[in-house]
Amino acid sequence: MRKGEQTRVAILDAALELASRDGLEGLTIGLLADRMQMSKSGVFAHFGSREDLQIAVIQEYHRRFEEEVFYPSIREPRGLPRLRAMFHRWVTRHSREITSGCIYISGAVEYDDRPGPIRDELLQMVSAWKMALTRAARQAVEAGHLRADTDCEQLIYEVRALIFALHHDARFLQAHDAIERTERAFLRLIANHTVPPLAHAA
Amino acid sequence: MRKGEQTRVAILDAALELASRDGLEGLTIGLLADRMQMSKSGVFAHFGSREDLQIAVIQEYHRRFEEEVFYPSIREPRGLPRLRAMFHRWVTRHSREITSGCIYISGAVEYDDRPGPIRDELLQMVSAWKMALTRAARQAVEAGHLRADTDCEQLIYEVRALIFALHHDARFLQAHDAIERTERAFLRLIANHTVPPLAHAA
Repeated sequence: MRKGEQTRVAILDAALELASRDGLEGLTIGLLADRMQMSKSGVFAHFGSREDLQIAVIQEYHRRFEEEVFYPSIREPRGLPRLRAMFHRWVTRHSREITSGCIYISGAVEYDDRPGPIRDELLQMVSAWKMALTRAARQAVEAGHLRADTDCEQLIYEVRALIFALHHDARFLQAHDAIERTERAFLRLIANHTVPPLAHAA
Repeated sequence: MRKGEQTRVAILDAALELASRDGLEGLTIGLLADRMQMSKSGVFAHFGSREDLQIAVIQEYHRRFEEEVFYPSIREPRGLPRLRAMFHRWVTRHSREITSGCIYISGAVEYDDRPGPIRDELLQMVSAWKMALTRAARQAVEAGHLRADTDCEQLIYEVRALIFALHHDARFLQAHDAIERTERAFLRLIANHTVPPLAHAA
């Protein structure tokens, strides 16, 4: 990497850390310059505006999410193995993020009634992941791993709900059993849609 | 009400609206004074500090939540009818809050890594409601409405998860089917724990 590129990466790294802690709205060029021991104009040389920086942070977060959760999962066989891998890798990522927080979830609260490019960028990332999960569920139906009458959108709604609860309870309530509860709920949810039906696997 | 008390109530009302929109951290004495067409010192006369105001907002939010969700529900018979009422009134409250947002959920994201009196106040309110739900589930087991082997804490974890998903999808994704999905998931969840077991009511 050239020097300029290295600096950009280092700034982005620090920005990601700040945004995870204080939210995307808490991210300012001033704070970041302090953290990097750079001048504000030095930061501006790499990111033209605060909004550019916020969007770059979302994209970098998404890139890491894909690298850690999505790509290794799609190496699993289509169907339930892949859906399970997506879920478990997502939970694992959250369990490491307990001290920092998930930008998708905190960003949703920050921008749910704040239209603009940052909300649009977040929305696109969150929607892409939701679609990937729904696709994996559909493939599990096609593969005969889940019952033919499974409502995949409903199933993924409920799977995502568990991750929201995990984020809330692990971070805000500091509940030690949130990961275990999330995994148990997922097992029951899948059992509800498995062929042949398992009697109340929960 | 005396004049002073009326003014305090009007300020609190405006503060609640601002906090629902911009978050508790977005609530400032300055913004509120503007909104009320009062001087800042006029607002300070009723709330000694910004933090006092934020805490008063949480308490007022909680009072309204109890009035709308908790008290009418506990008039229902113990057991499943009461648990159902708590859930449905909670969903209804969210469906009206779609344009403003829930201070408990946005507050959890704002204060999950920010210790202090505001976090403590929020935590107390959120924990009280979680305990009330768990108690209602236990009574449903005692009444024989839910199976004896129901893990009530797990059940309530999953019920709360649905409300987080509702808040996220209705507000951030602007999904029109979030309420319906939430209700369907609740039915399946209850069916999973009903005696005699219903075969996959989902």
